[in-house]
Amino acid sequence: MEIKKAVITAAGPSQRSLPLQTLVDRDGKSKSALAIIVDESLQSGIEEICVVVNPGDREAYRAAAGPHGKRLSFVEQTQPLGYGHAVWCAKEFTGASPFLLLVGDHLYISHGAKRCAQQLVETAAVEACTVSAVQATRENKLPHYGAVGGRLAGARQGLYLVSDVVEKPTPTVAEQSLIVPGLRAGHYLCFFGMHVLTPRVMALLGEEVAAAGDKGRVQLSAALARLAEHERYLACELQGGRFDIGVKYGLLTAQLALALAGEDRDEVLSGLVELLARGGK
Amino acid sequence: MEIKKAVITAAGPSQRSLPLQTLVDRDGKSKSALAIIVDESLQSGIEEICVVVNPGDREAYRAAAGPHGKRLSFVEQTQPLGYGHAVWCAKEFTGASPFLLLVGDHLYISHGAKRCAQQLVETAAVEACTVSAVQATRENKLPHYGAVGGRLAGARQGLYLVSDVVEKPTPTVAEQSLIVPGLRAGHYLCFFGMHVLTPRVMALLGEEVAAAGDKGRVQLSAALARLAEHERYLACELQGGRFDIGVKYGLLTAQLALALAGEDRDEVLSGLVELLARGGK
Repeated sequence: MEIKKAVITAAGPSQRSLPLQTLVDRDGKSKSALAIIVDESLQSGIEEICVVVNPGDREAYRAAAGPHGKRLSFVEQTQPLGYGHAVWCAKEFTGASPFLLLVGDHLYISHGAKRCAQQLVETAAVEACTVSAVQATRENKLPHYGAVGGRLAGARQGLYLVSDVVEKPTPTVAEQSLIVPGLRAGHYLCFFGMHVLTPRVMALLGEEVAAAGDKGRVQLSAALARLAEHERYLACELQGGRFDIGVKYGLLTAQLALALAGEDRDEVLSGLVELLARGGK
Repeated sequence: MEIKKAVITAAGPSQRSLPLQTLVDRDGKSKSALAIIVDESLQSGIEEICVVVNPGDREAYRAAAGPHGKRLSFVEQTQPLGYGHAVWCAKEFTGASPFLLLVGDHLYISHGAKRCAQQLVETAAVEACTVSAVQATRENKLPHYGAVGGRLAGARQGLYLVSDVVEKPTPTVAEQSLIVPGLRAGHYLCFFGMHVLTPRVMALLGEEVAAAGDKGRVQLSAALARLAEHERYLACELQGGRFDIGVKYGLLTAQLALALAGEDRDEVLSGLVELLARGGK
């Protein structure tokens, strides 16, 4: 299975300006968060990118994408009907192709040579099915994430066959249906914010959108839960960390992590020590 | 002299998106850099604020100013004719009033209870003349700033009578005309990016703009140098630090300094230690 398309969602009402925030990337260059996410996609073999935005945000995003701005296409989510609906808005762009799905308010820092998206895309290409990136996450963080239940898919470490998907499960629900053999006690596999989805998921999302009508919010997790009932659907732990730039001090933490993973590591560390020595003055 | 108006310049071509960047302020709230600067003005007794922007940036800025967006007026700098020209664009807004001048790409963190702008505004109100905030700066940083020469204005520490203003002086020029008795060796008084200007300065800027025509760039320093020849013009060291968010890692440094000066100090410090302990992962 070849994955050449990517969809980046950036239409969440509280997240509209996040992809426009400026950070210094690992290469020492100042870029918008959007440009860093676009780089992540392109370095994973993606050739076409569609960004789902709020009406009116298109031009600001194109400018923020920097040199790759011309390569992006945009689609507007005209009603705030949830994350699943935002993804579904890109259905004409993805057509009959599988696609990488990224969120506009997360940055990823790989612990190895391959970018996080590349690790995921390569796994999906080999396995030829929908694969969600997941991270073993402590129980107390379940209210923030979608989580999957399942079991190891085979000999390969960190690859799981998904049997269940629940959005923001309670601890009780998690204990009943999401315990994954092999994980540390009190840990669950939560979504990492990065998926490779097949056209089948888009079709399921379409059904969810039709069922929800103008009122409800459509969750990607609901479509993935239905997928898990019918098809081989995998979850994959990646060698890397996820940084949510939408939380308080999220930009600060992401910037520090980028700097510590990049070529300016020493410069930033000594600047940090100097600032702390001056008491922040 | 009462200072009730402020002008914030944000039309520099490389600085257009800087005031829109999001930071967590000392009060623990996420705000745009512009909103933090607007707060600094309002807390210094300013009642009316005009922002000088590039054509087309008005609405993004109004949105970024948050709750104070409706209080701002905007004027466009339609040609990139320099910092002095940008200030002069606000001449109808300032009219016959003295005004506080701030730049949209700097944040200020006071070392005391009074905000930096408040310290400056109170000094100018008492002295009833143009006052520029300055900072004793090492010689090697002269290429980045405007610098003043002069002598202590009286008994009050940190208040100087300005005799000379030179934009980005060479070390030779600095040594010839900008040595200020009482400063540490190798240090000069450089602009801090914050001034209270009288209508006379606006008139001098108008003459500079007319002389430069469509070709030249108009520097504020040139108008201030002429002011120093004719009028009492003071420079004032403030109790506080300046953070240029336009330089590489400037946002990171400003965010850390804000956090260390604010109520989230302990939370941020422990987050920092945790991140470093994980090696940035």
